[in-house]
This record gives sequence, C-alpha cells and structure tokens, in this order.
Amino acid sequence: MRATIIYGAGDVRVENVPDPVLQQPTDAVVRVLRACICGSDLHPYHNMPATPEGSTIGHEFVGVVEEIGSDVSTLKPGDVVIAPFAWSDNTCDFCREGLHTSCRTGGFWNAPGVGGGQAEAVRVPLADGTLVKAPVAEDSPLLPSLLTLSDVYGTGYHAAIKAGVNPRTTVTVIGDGAVGLMAVLSAKRLGAEQIILMGRHKARTDLGLEFGATDAVAERGEEGIAKVRELTGGDGTHTVLEAVGYMEAYDQALGVVRPGGVISRVGVPQYADAPVGFPTLFGPNITLTGGPAPVRAYIEELLPDVLEGKVDPGRVFDRTVSLDEVPAGYKAMDDREALKVLVRP
Amino acid sequence: MRATIIYGAGDVRVENVPDPVLQQPTDAVVRVLRACICGSDLHPYHNMPATPEGSTIGHEFVGVVEEIGSDVSTLKPGDVVIAPFAWSDNTCDFCREGLHTSCRTGGFWNAPGVGGGQAEAVRVPLADGTLVKAPVAEDSPLLPSLLTLSDVYGTGYHAAIKAGVNPRTTVTVIGDGAVGLMAVLSAKRLGAEQIILMGRHKARTDLGLEFGATDAVAERGEEGIAKVRELTGGDGTHTVLEAVGYMEAYDQALGVVRPGGVISRVGVPQYADAPVGFPTLFGPNITLTGGPAPVRAYIEELLPDVLEGKVDPGRVFDRTVSLDEVPAGYKAMDDREALKVLVRP
Repeated sequence: MRATIIYGAGDVRVENVPDPVLQQPTDAVVRVLRACICGSDLHPYHNMPATPEGSTIGHEFVGVVEEIGSDVSTLKPGDVVIAPFAWSDNTCDFCREGLHTSCRTGGFWNAPGVGGGQAEAVRVPLADGTLVKAPVAEDSPLLPSLLTLSDVYGTGYHAAIKAGVNPRTTVTVIGDGAVGLMAVLSAKRLGAEQIILMGRHKARTDLGLEFGATDAVAERGEEGIAKVRELTGGDGTHTVLEAVGYMEAYDQALGVVRPGGVISRVGVPQYADAPVGFPTLFGPNITLTGGPAPVRAYIEELLPDVLEGKVDPGRVFDRTVSLDEVPAGYKAMDDREALKVLVRP
Repeated sequence: MRATIIYGAGDVRVENVPDPVLQQPTDAVVRVLRACICGSDLHPYHNMPATPEGSTIGHEFVGVVEEIGSDVSTLKPGDVVIAPFAWSDNTCDFCREGLHTSCRTGGFWNAPGVGGGQAEAVRVPLADGTLVKAPVAEDSPLLPSLLTLSDVYGTGYHAAIKAGVNPRTTVTVIGDGAVGLMAVLSAKRLGAEQIILMGRHKARTDLGLEFGATDAVAERGEEGIAKVRELTGGDGTHTVLEAVGYMEAYDQALGVVRPGGVISRVGVPQYADAPVGFPTLFGPNITLTGGPAPVRAYIEELLPDVLEGKVDPGRVFDRTVSLDEVPAGYKAMDDREALKVLVRP
C-alpha cells in the first residue's frame, strides 16, 4: 500500500510499504477513508533530524474495518469507525478515569509495528477499546466532521473541560488553528457567554465567530493582552484555552487570565520551563492544566451533535488532497495557505 | 505599644510604636491575644535587604475587639475574633467566589498604615468583612487552635481543596512544617484514605501520623520519590500538596504525582521558572494549582470542629514566647528547634 513517511524536517514522502496485517487477536485492520494533517505534525516537519529509515506519520483517521482478530467482539468488517489519536484498552483504571492517553496497555500511532494515519490502511491494536463505530456510509458527507473527533475537536473540548468552562465562565482562546477553533466550538457547547478568540488570520477568526466566538482579537503580545482586558472590564477571563504551544502564547495566557482563573494548554509546548512563580501563577491563584487530549473519552459525547448536523466541525478543512499530494499538503499548512488539510487516500 | 519590626535579614526587633487608632469608619482596633511566627516570615528573615526604617511583621493573630468605627455593624468591643492573613470586604465578586486574597478593596497586613500581628494591637481595615467572631473567652484553651485558622490550617485546607482531595484520591504532602501538617489534617478531613507525608523531622512526621497521615517518608529527592512510588504500586498519588516552596519540592512533586494528577502549591515559591513542558506537566496531563490561601473563605467551615475539640490543630505550636522574646522565636524556628512559635503579648 501507499503510506506517508517523514525522513526529517521538510522531507515528507509517499511510498510503497507492506500492507498492514493482524498481529494480535485484539487487532483490526482499517482501510482509511479520510485522514488529515495536524498542526502538531508540523513540529517534526520543522525539527526532525534526518534519518535514513524515516517514520510513518499521521494520527487522525476514519476508515472501514477490513479484518478483525479473533478476540475482537464489538466490530465487524464493513463498520465505519473513528480512530482516536491514541489507542487504548478502554478498561484500565486510567481509561476508566477518562485518561486514555495514559492507558496502561495503549500507545500512539507510528510506534514500532503500528503505522500512521496518512496511509491507505492501518493496523489498529486493541481495536475494541480504541475504535468508535459511526453509523454512516463510506461516502457520508459527515466524514470530515467525524474525522475531527480523531483529534482536533476532542482536543479543543479537552481544553475547555480541563479549564472548567461553564455558563458562568468567560473564555479566551489563544490560537486560530483548527484546535483553537474547536476550542471555541467546545466553549460554546459548554455554555460560555463570552468567548474571545485571539488570532491573526481573518478567514479563520471569521470561522471562529461562526463557531461561537463573541470577539476576535487580532493583536498579539502586550497589545493583544490590553485588548482582552478592555473587553473584560480590566480583569481578563476566567479561563484561557491555549492552542498554540509556543512561549509567546504562554505569556499571552498569563496576561489575559483573571485571578483565580485557569490556563488550559492543548498546544504541545515547544519549551521546557516557564514562569510559575509568585508574580505569574502563584500570587493570583492561577491553575495551569491540560495535556494531550484523551479524545477517546469524548467521542461518544460529541458524536450525536455531529451526526444530527447540529455542529459542523469539519468546516476546519479548507483543502483536500490525495495521498500522493500529502507532501504538498504539509507545505500548504506550513505556509499558512491552508488551515487544515484533508487527505482522501 | 510594643510591636515587632524587621530591619533586614536576621534583624528582628521589638520596639515601642504609636498605638493603632481608627482611621476609617470601617476599621476596628484589635488587642492581640495570641500571634505567631510563620514559615513564610522566615523568607524576609533570610533575604530582606537592610532598611533603616524597617517594617512591621506578622500576619496571624486572634484578639479582642477594643474599638470599632462607626460603620462596623457585626462586631462589638469585647468580641474575640480571628484575623485571616489578608483583610477583605467579603462582598466583592472575588470574595464571593472565595478568592479573598484577590479582594478588590482588601490587602495584607504590614501594608502602609496597617500594622502587623506580632504586636500588642492591630488596626484592622474592613473589620466586618475581615474578622470572624469566635464564641470563646479571652483565656480559652482553644486560642492556639483558633489561631491556626488565621493562616496555616486554612492554607493546608486550600492546598487540599484546590487539589480536589476526596475519598477516592491518594495524597502526598511535601513538607513537615506547620502548613504541611495542616495539609495532612485537611486531607484527612476530606476523606483521603492514603496520605503520605514527606518530611525529615521525626517529631513532626509523628505528629503528622496522629493528624491522619498513613505513611511518613523521610527520604528526599530520587530516594524519596522511589519510596512514594513503592507505596503507590509504582504510580504516585492523585494529588500532591506542596507546602515548602523550594525548587527541590517542586521536583519532588513532579516525581510523585500520578498521570492525570494535581500538584497543589501553598509553599510560597522561591523560584520564578520551573519545568512545565511535555515530559513534566503536559505529557501526563498534570495540573499545577494553588497560591496564597483565601483563608477567610474557610474559617466558618473549619471553625465548628475546632470549637467542638474534634481536631486540635494548635498542636503545631511547640514553643511559646512573650512579645519581647519574638527575636529568639525567629531564631528557634530558623534553626528548626521549634516547629511553630506562639506569641503571647
């Protein structure tokens, strides 16, 4: 089959690789209907040291079950399924607590022996625990929205849940990428009445306003902070959903959070240390939370509104490529020409 | 009257100063029955640059109302009262949210025009909002326990509340000072079944075991972390209550917290930056919370058990000094000869 391999920064290729096969009785093999490129895929695209062997890439896909192992009991060939970006048994104590990203027997795509989502097919370990069936046909127009449940919608929702967003909390979302926009949609779902979206790309913040943002702030740094404070009577917001991952976004979060508030990070931090002392987090009793989203925990909850068309998170996809065009898709996202690229193998 | 003035690191003196007087109609003047020396008073005792004018010091006291301003309606001369370590109106939005340390009109003892607790008397601003009446006599044997509601008991409780301690969470308390021991008592109050106390001073950890700790770990650093992991099946605890404030304690907290868990800090951080990146906080979805405790929010809740003798937090005081002996009290706490020093003016 064809699969995407990254060999180092800027070096993404689509190549022939062996077809995935069942290795464990708990495995399934899933043919990919739709995959996509994630903002976090751009980190290795920027930083990965060159390696001769390369690594498969991609961690978001919806597909059709092709084969199941003898121990798989909840799925059958032909089922359309959503794959979360981490695979998990869904039964261990961490999974029962909703922290599937720390599953005792789970793991992440592109680990040794497990392929990536930007491919024609994928071997899925722990298929019963990992995959969520979607009652749609292979050609459903809902596929792009269902695909957001693989990562970005669940990730935005995780940011909002960990921040404790509710009808009484004001919200700032930092970042107008797909996760930031999904954080807006999630804050809206949880009832927030003021949702300020900080982002520089008008087409994206316009979509954010449609998803439920009440204000868009294009300014960054001190100027952006002043704008948010102006919109909140000087106080900042109860919650800040940080969907970027760079230090500038962390500093911006400190600047716009209200005393007693929460900074919830889902942008993968590209820094090791950050200010957490008396003047920043401690004195005003700010909580710092977040992490990789256990999206598996949220799929059943978010799925009905997607199936009923009440929300259309698939609107974050503004470009579609074939598998062989994936390298061009990376370039388009890296150049900020595309918000999020859908892949149709 | 006599009051304690700090002139710089290691330089604490008791001197004659003008008696406090009512300055605002919302003020009260309170004669101090009992005050004490706080672990956090040791920070200026170590670091304060020498100043010729000095500053009053002390932020914990119980006393008797001597005089009230014309707008004070809930107190009368003769009332025995508990003073939280921050004064507050108890009516603004932050106070109503339980964040009295961020009160819009409040402040902290030893600010200009407001004295400190290690004195014969104190001018109390916003007396109706700040002071909590205790239905006891001036010579009550409960005074030491009531005094802990000024700071250390409420601070330990804040750590536990912000961490979300409940009957299903395991707890590590880092630090066997008065706040650490009060964090143990608080975790016990909230129903935690495993409470591991990390501290090196056997007399203190023994008191911690009486307060409800299930295990005491004397080792520090990697050795201490290994011990806590051994006691928790390798996982660490759901919550870590950090009552020290040094970087070593932060690192220890990272080492003993379970994935998805919470590090709740109430030790005033003596550092500006700390690890918060993927391998430390983000990857395992660790939450970092805490700050100066809004103890005013907790006094009414914690008071009944103290009055009924169900808990005896006053046992943290292991030495009593007169006001003129306060400098010796600082030395005893700094030398770790005393756990916490009670002051009887």
